Amino acid sequence: MARIVVALGGNALGNTPAEQREKVAEAARTLVGLIEQGNEIVVAHGNGPQVGMINLGLSHAAADGVIKAEMPFPECGAMSQGYIGYHLQNAILRRMRERRLPWSVCTVVTQVEVDPADPAFQNPTKPIGSFYSEAEAAARMAAGDGVYKEDAGRGWRKVVPSPIPVDIVEKESVLSLLRDDFVVVACGGGGIPVVKRAEGDYEGVAAVIDKDFASECLAEVCDADFLFILTAVDRVCINFNKPDQRELKEMTAAEAESFAAEGQFAPGSMLPKVKAAVKFARSKPGRRAVICSLEKATLAMSGESGTIVTA
Amino acid sequence: MARIVVALGGNALGNTPAEQREKVAEAARTLVGLIEQGNEIVVAHGNGPQVGMINLGLSHAAADGVIKAEMPFPECGAMSQGYIGYHLQNAILRRMRERRLPWSVCTVVTQVEVDPADPAFQNPTKPIGSFYSEAEAAARMAAGDGVYKEDAGRGWRKVVPSPIPVDIVEKESVLSLLRDDFVVVACGGGGIPVVKRAEGDYEGVAAVIDKDFASECLAEVCDADFLFILTAVDRVCINFNKPDQRELKEMTAAEAESFAAEGQFAPGSMLPKVKAAVKFARSKPGRRAVICSLEKATLAMSGESGTIVTA
Repeated sequence: MARIVVALGGNALGNTPAEQREKVAEAARTLVGLIEQGNEIVVAHGNGPQVGMINLGLSHAAADGVIKAEMPFPECGAMSQGYIGYHLQNAILRRMRERRLPWSVCTVVTQVEVDPADPAFQNPTKPIGSFYSEAEAAARMAAGDGVYKEDAGRGWRKVVPSPIPVDIVEKESVLSLLRDDFVVVACGGGGIPVVKRAEGDYEGVAAVIDKDFASECLAEVCDADFLFILTAVDRVCINFNKPDQRELKEMTAAEAESFAAEGQFAPGSMLPKVKAAVKFARSKPGRRAVICSLEKATLAMSGESGTIVTA
Repeated sequence: MARIVVALGGNALGNTPAEQREKVAEAARTLVGLIEQGNEIVVAHGNGPQVGMINLGLSHAAADGVIKAEMPFPECGAMSQGYIGYHLQNAILRRMRERRLPWSVCTVVTQVEVDPADPAFQNPTKPIGSFYSEAEAAARMAAGDGVYKEDAGRGWRKVVPSPIPVDIVEKESVLSLLRDDFVVVACGGGGIPVVKRAEGDYEGVAAVIDKDFASECLAEVCDADFLFILTAVDRVCINFNKPDQRELKEMTAAEAESFAAEGQFAPGSMLPKVKAAVKFARSKPGRRAVICSLEKATLAMSGESGTIVTA
């Protein structure tokens, strides 16, 4: 039996509650398929559109005086974990019972520790929330509300750093549940980003942790055998969308790095997935990462789909 | 060692994120105080103001076209569990480490099953979300969006049923974590209300489960020794706010019912607490319920504060 941390991408969720309910039912078929192959799974997932919707919606309501206060970004992330986790645990449980599997599912509200000295804090890059005019953005910056940048001609938006995860605060919860054969949903949206002030004393920070890196960190602390990073394509490609495009069945960490250095992988898309895969493959002998599509993930173990990344 | 399910009321949380962070730090002192007395605790909590804020804010944003779709009520409840659970687990962990206690905390996203045949579904009473004009409310009802009622001259609001909880879908998760000595936060806001369509097949319904009844149900499935229902007063009173007001140190279930029949307890306030306490005290020999204030909860075990309800 292998232990697999599966990182679901945004394409496995959806932009509205109804769409999300439909999409997670599809994701559950794949996840339960992996369980039926004899694997133990931990499910991590992104939250870009969902946390954006929550942040945008509540900011707008606060600006209009409909609700009393703005919702800080870590709290919006926590909300998105409840929202997505509810749909996921519900869909996985339903699918397990359809397949007559006896296990239970648990969503763990997860904080992920980042390092306040991470250089990302000096260079916030991830745009979040509402668009503002230049004057509004200047006023907000003057009031101490972080950094705002002009976003592709559409207006000014708050930008937050994307630091590297260093630890999963609730790792003991995840491990305890795994010992009891639970399917665990954790680290939603890369986790609620927190910095450590003292032992057990964590404080939320406005940041976005890349869900692929958070899943990698989770896979390490869970001592997983595999990290599955699900995406929209069946395999990692080089010369993507060019006449000489080539699908990769496997690559070593060194090969992956050399392709990355050639600029083969799009930043913000395939590049973080490949980087997270390389990090995991190198973290301990025998660990492997798989980048594959949601639809064909159950074919990845036998090499029929997906790209396996080895040390 | 006693196992205690503690139900935190709205007064233990707060109306804004900043206020909530402060209030849960206070609540954590009490909760960890109970642990230091040698007890094992499960924390349940209300979510009235929080889920109201989320529902109202996102409805407003959807109506203005800022976000794509309205957020159904069960999903808003799931969000509130993430939001409140994040603050609670953070505060409890901090306080435990301050007191040099080694345990961990886990928030479990919790669905609570209700019976679709519950008579409450024929008579929705709990107002939620935005106010509408009579014409808007009529249009929404005509479109199949539930029942709307006029709310105390302030406009029309959706009303949802408040059914009795029959089971905790994630009870196995809670029990597994308790076996491993975790402090568990569960059943936030009375739980996400769901009905069972088939084995493992649950569907969210627009309803509000009273958090005192949900906590009682949780206490039964956890085989707790005590159900603590925290409120704003130190003890249950009869002739409340009258010259002959009398604080009760203890009462039997039969006494409680006779006081309730006299109209001693305010509906929607002390009455559901007393009813939940009576139900728990009668559920198994030796089980006791305590209604007490957050501040003095650690004095309740020795009888120095609180009202103990016995079978």
